[in-house]
Amino acid sequence: MSDFDLENYLAERQAAINAALDGLLPEPAREVDPGRLREGMRYAVLLGGKRMRPLLTIACCEAVGGEVAHALPAGCALEMIHAYSLVHDDLPAMDNDLERRGQPTVHVKFGVANAILIGDALLTSAFSVLVCGAHGIPPTSMADAVTILAKHSGIDGMVGGQALDLEEGQDIGEIGRLEQVHALKTGGLFAAAGALGALSGGARSEAVAKLERYGLAFGVAFQHADDILDDDQPALREAAAVRIRELTDECRELASGFGAAARPLRALADWIDERAARARSGENLA
Amino acid sequence: MSDFDLENYLAERQAAINAALDGLLPEPAREVDPGRLREGMRYAVLLGGKRMRPLLTIACCEAVGGEVAHALPAGCALEMIHAYSLVHDDLPAMDNDLERRGQPTVHVKFGVANAILIGDALLTSAFSVLVCGAHGIPPTSMADAVTILAKHSGIDGMVGGQALDLEEGQDIGEIGRLEQVHALKTGGLFAAAGALGALSGGARSEAVAKLERYGLAFGVAFQHADDILDDDQPALREAAAVRIRELTDECRELASGFGAAARPLRALADWIDERAARARSGENLA
Repeated sequence: MSDFDLENYLAERQAAINAALDGLLPEPAREVDPGRLREGMRYAVLLGGKRMRPLLTIACCEAVGGEVAHALPAGCALEMIHAYSLVHDDLPAMDNDLERRGQPTVHVKFGVANAILIGDALLTSAFSVLVCGAHGIPPTSMADAVTILAKHSGIDGMVGGQALDLEEGQDIGEIGRLEQVHALKTGGLFAAAGALGALSGGARSEAVAKLERYGLAFGVAFQHADDILDDDQPALREAAAVRIRELTDECRELASGFGAAARPLRALADWIDERAARARSGENLA
Repeated sequence: MSDFDLENYLAERQAAINAALDGLLPEPAREVDPGRLREGMRYAVLLGGKRMRPLLTIACCEAVGGEVAHALPAGCALEMIHAYSLVHDDLPAMDNDLERRGQPTVHVKFGVANAILIGDALLTSAFSVLVCGAHGIPPTSMADAVTILAKHSGIDGMVGGQALDLEEGQDIGEIGRLEQVHALKTGGLFAAAGALGALSGGARSEAVAKLERYGLAFGVAFQHADDILDDDQPALREAAAVRIRELTDECRELASGFGAAARPLRALADWIDERAARARSGENLA
């Protein structure tokens, strides 16, 4: 659908993200690490992951003419918040997951009390990571940036989405209600990635709002595609496929306003469509 | 020791703090409160407490010539972080406390999963509360303010102190090691109160550093006095009393540089001494 080399684009930026995260969470000496909290923070963040939120932060920063390095602080902050949410969601009182990416979850490896604190520490660090280092956010936008990160991570975003998800239970059965959960729980951090990427690239408020909207649509489409891949909501598969296409169309439309610099954003929307199509044809062949 | 009416000073400011917190955490309609998270956030914050951290934030703001209203955002942010730390520390996997201030703890009333999320939501909201509203922090100091809040709340402050406390266990047995826990776990947020109060009053970095140091010394002395009141570390009682006097002397010395505007800071140091003396004489009479 596009001659843009997305794979190479993502691999280069993933390497920069992983290096930045490694630098932000240095290997601690045992004697200065009570409860092995620092070791646990590293474990939670560095064990792997596609780094989708920082990737989108970078792509949105580039779409407004900014540099990769300027988006790394905001991107790493979002990855740390994503990592903390997994640590807390995996806890026995929540989803009680024992493995993630083939490795023991943080509470299995470090204990439940320390896992709670490791999550708390990652969430807290995220805010200092956002405002420190070589970010491109001007001082007059700093309060906006903090507000955006807090809004999409907290009660009006990801945390609220997790509560809604726990309340709705396994089988939601209606695409609109499912999408409400996705918009908060997954879409929140992607919306923040769009807005903070734009702010890191020095964009004005109109572009920030557009890329926040791109991030939300992208995040919800990404989660619908994940549901199809994981066969999470088989009854809603057709409805989810329709919504993915509507959302990625919205993403392409929003990206079109940013010209050639937004090629990665268009390619990312195409990539979601391809992911969803592959997942569905895999199902049809099975 | 002073003709300053501390009781009246504190009562007026506590009323302003409670009104601000009530406004920041509005009563939710049931249908927009999945998991009763908003209700739980209110419960965790508004059930009571002396509001020591916001009081110190205000007193430090006033010491540098600032207004009470300008210190309320930073003060409320600190109170929300204090409240989240109590919610998480009370959890079954941590201290397993069932009551606080004569009422069921948050996880008893709202369930463990929701209590984790209520803590997460309060911590996240604290950062947006800090940067929004009528704070007196200039845009060029906003990144510093966020960094100070994160540093003293997270792995290098309160969260690190809680991990150290869990590792040390009940009987620490040596005043230096006990004070290391107090400096992180309690002193951190008080140090942040000093620094953020000063920043909210428009102070320069030298005054910010002095009041950060005041806050740390005050917080550690406050915690030592609490230990004596609660009979927490009977073997360290004499050593704690000596340290309280050294720390409050340091507080008075630091406050003396700010003239008449720092009368509340001097009166607060005297108040800690009186608290400790009353606790010790009560013990002697018993």
